[in-house]
Amino acid sequence: MLQAALRSGAAHRTSVFELFARRLPDGRRYGIVAGTGRFLEALREFRFGTAELDDLRKRKVVDDATLEWLGSYRFSGDIWGYAEGEAYFPGSPILVVESTFAEGVILETVALSIFNHDSAIASAASRMTAVAGDRPCIEMGSRRTHELSAVAAARAAYIAGFATTSNLEAGRRYGVPTSGTAAHSFTLLHDDEREAFQAQVDCLGAGTTLLVDTYDVTNAVQIAVEVAGPELGGVRLDSGDLLGQARDVREQLDGLGATKTRIVVTSDLDEYAIAALQAGPVDAYGVGTQLVTGSGAPTAGMVYKLVARADDAGTMVGVAKASKDKKSVGGRKYALRRIDSRGVAEAEIIGIGERPENDGNDRELLVPLVKGGEIVGDATLEQARERHLASRKELSRKAIQLSRGEPVIPTTYLDDQP
Amino acid sequence: MLQAALRSGAAHRTSVFELFARRLPDGRRYGIVAGTGRFLEALREFRFGTAELDDLRKRKVVDDATLEWLGSYRFSGDIWGYAEGEAYFPGSPILVVESTFAEGVILETVALSIFNHDSAIASAASRMTAVAGDRPCIEMGSRRTHELSAVAAARAAYIAGFATTSNLEAGRRYGVPTSGTAAHSFTLLHDDEREAFQAQVDCLGAGTTLLVDTYDVTNAVQIAVEVAGPELGGVRLDSGDLLGQARDVREQLDGLGATKTRIVVTSDLDEYAIAALQAGPVDAYGVGTQLVTGSGAPTAGMVYKLVARADDAGTMVGVAKASKDKKSVGGRKYALRRIDSRGVAEAEIIGIGERPENDGNDRELLVPLVKGGEIVGDATLEQARERHLASRKELSRKAIQLSRGEPVIPTTYLDDQP
Repeated sequence: MLQAALRSGAAHRTSVFELFARRLPDGRRYGIVAGTGRFLEALREFRFGTAELDDLRKRKVVDDATLEWLGSYRFSGDIWGYAEGEAYFPGSPILVVESTFAEGVILETVALSIFNHDSAIASAASRMTAVAGDRPCIEMGSRRTHELSAVAAARAAYIAGFATTSNLEAGRRYGVPTSGTAAHSFTLLHDDEREAFQAQVDCLGAGTTLLVDTYDVTNAVQIAVEVAGPELGGVRLDSGDLLGQARDVREQLDGLGATKTRIVVTSDLDEYAIAALQAGPVDAYGVGTQLVTGSGAPTAGMVYKLVARADDAGTMVGVAKASKDKKSVGGRKYALRRIDSRGVAEAEIIGIGERPENDGNDRELLVPLVKGGEIVGDATLEQARERHLASRKELSRKAIQLSRGEPVIPTTYLDDQP
Repeated sequence: MLQAALRSGAAHRTSVFELFARRLPDGRRYGIVAGTGRFLEALREFRFGTAELDDLRKRKVVDDATLEWLGSYRFSGDIWGYAEGEAYFPGSPILVVESTFAEGVILETVALSIFNHDSAIASAASRMTAVAGDRPCIEMGSRRTHELSAVAAARAAYIAGFATTSNLEAGRRYGVPTSGTAAHSFTLLHDDEREAFQAQVDCLGAGTTLLVDTYDVTNAVQIAVEVAGPELGGVRLDSGDLLGQARDVREQLDGLGATKTRIVVTSDLDEYAIAALQAGPVDAYGVGTQLVTGSGAPTAGMVYKLVARADDAGTMVGVAKASKDKKSVGGRKYALRRIDSRGVAEAEIIGIGERPENDGNDRELLVPLVKGGEIVGDATLEQARERHLASRKELSRKAIQLSRGEPVIPTTYLDDQP
């Protein structure tokens, strides 16, 4: 595609690509943008090196002119996008890329891969942390997804309100706070549970969290408090009737004087299981599989479409595929979140041409990310975390209902072009 | 966990870990092992470098003794496993790791990440290629998953019978055959469809595949044949009623003399959509989202469990968690596929202790992968592809039925230990 466009000359036409989701996953009320920081990091390093070019040459994938173009590739255009952590809705222009066709089209796969993965995780994570309220959620899903998706998933979960991750590389690379846990293998390795608990407490102090469901929970809790004393930091439950067990264990701990010992639960939790456990004396949730697989929606289903390009005279022309079931709206967009007088979001306004007079309640959603090839939109992970909280808080309470429904605000398209 | 075990001394006990799936994804009849080659590659490079150790030290994640142990980490044990491409069932010991506890436990996350991801993809891909029969499946899902999962997914799909991938890095890194396609943006970039088709044919020859559903399919097919001649390689349909359109387009192409022009269809295909399209004149399937998300099962749900470890006297003791809902079977396993006299698989025999007398029809499933830290089980991707085909062919025809059901063969546990 690139080679043919370079040869026909059309590759150099100024073009606008937009990255957006045609819809939210079935029944979801909102989505959360994540991946912006990783995308900018990828863009900074987006080069075709000798190894890649040699391979393309050897396998005759593209011609020499295309190889030469790839070898000197540097993105020199402009990019705007939603701030990382922002809520999004069907049609929201999460990324707007303005450059030559060639410079923009080559970013399609990397942009979509990052936003589709990271936003799927953040969108699921946001529902979990909304339901969990003040109780911290711990990301523990690394082993259930590709080894590097795991690092990105920990980052996305943190943006959407998770407290910590068990992924140490996410700690190293992105500064996500980390916390660990002991597995059943640690208990099974030792001759008995008391010996295992003793080894853990000797090493990590009484503030550690002991896994109490390898054999018999009641017995294990008794031993745990005997070994660590009532200052025992926490116990973890990883199987069975978690709600009932949490209640029994709380009572038992309190009876043993371990009134401050926390109860951490894990075991294939998702937002629905967390909601059910909110009724019990649970202090923290460890979430694995359902977090890293987006709780039923492992990809955000975003697309990257050419929406406008120059004609021979250099005039920008809006373009869109005509297909009925995959409609796109041509033309470069602006995006505003309309906020009512009580501060609650009421519509996602997406338009072409002149934006409407701002009545003071419209919030501008597109921020500059790249100008003339230079990255200008770097944000910290803490800023993304704050953006997520503020953006979610702005949505009506219906947004965090777990029942299936429509997007919590409608997407309204405006077009003042002739 | 590692630090506590190093300090208690238990870390040095000889241990056996097994990686297995407690169940197949809901309704699936078989799974396909993928990731073995990537796991061995990861094991070869599994080191803790200065950057990692400095970070762990700085953030006080582990103590100095543990840092020192990590810094000199080299796996020195033995590993057996199912050959890559092999079918697996609940309980199949896909990987058996024998080493000290410390050496084995530290591999848990990387092993599970790789096998859970790659096997989820291969298991879904195998159903797709089984249904597609002689019609090639093209992997096109890169943009719907994490940017490096995409490379691994292309590899796993190829093992499970996909013909090619659009992921060029999978071509470079693993030698997976690659093939590309033009997007709607290429058509929209040009002033009209004829100009776009002409640019593509000028550059890639008449044998290329033209995307014909940007505006009006019938009109586009007419233009495509006018531009490329009846030697046109293929047309691609990416929206709408694919079965009806394929029939119309075939008739139109034949009428234009383009009787050898192939029809490639894409558009959120999964194994069910492919099955429905088998009734139509379709020549190849491009599969994206549903492939890279495991068609409803994005993770294989495999676990990595300590099943045996030495006691103080050095005697190996089988161990298992007692929980009812997450039962594991203690002890180091052997694994055989029992084949009936017609060559059809009839049971997955998993046992502890002495294996039964081989009556000539049992197929040994565990192959040596690592001996004393040295990798001995390298296999080529082509071998994995052949293993997949042979293993799938050995299953009864029920295996490739798409309707939901039980595993096509039962898992039988044998235990001749006292």
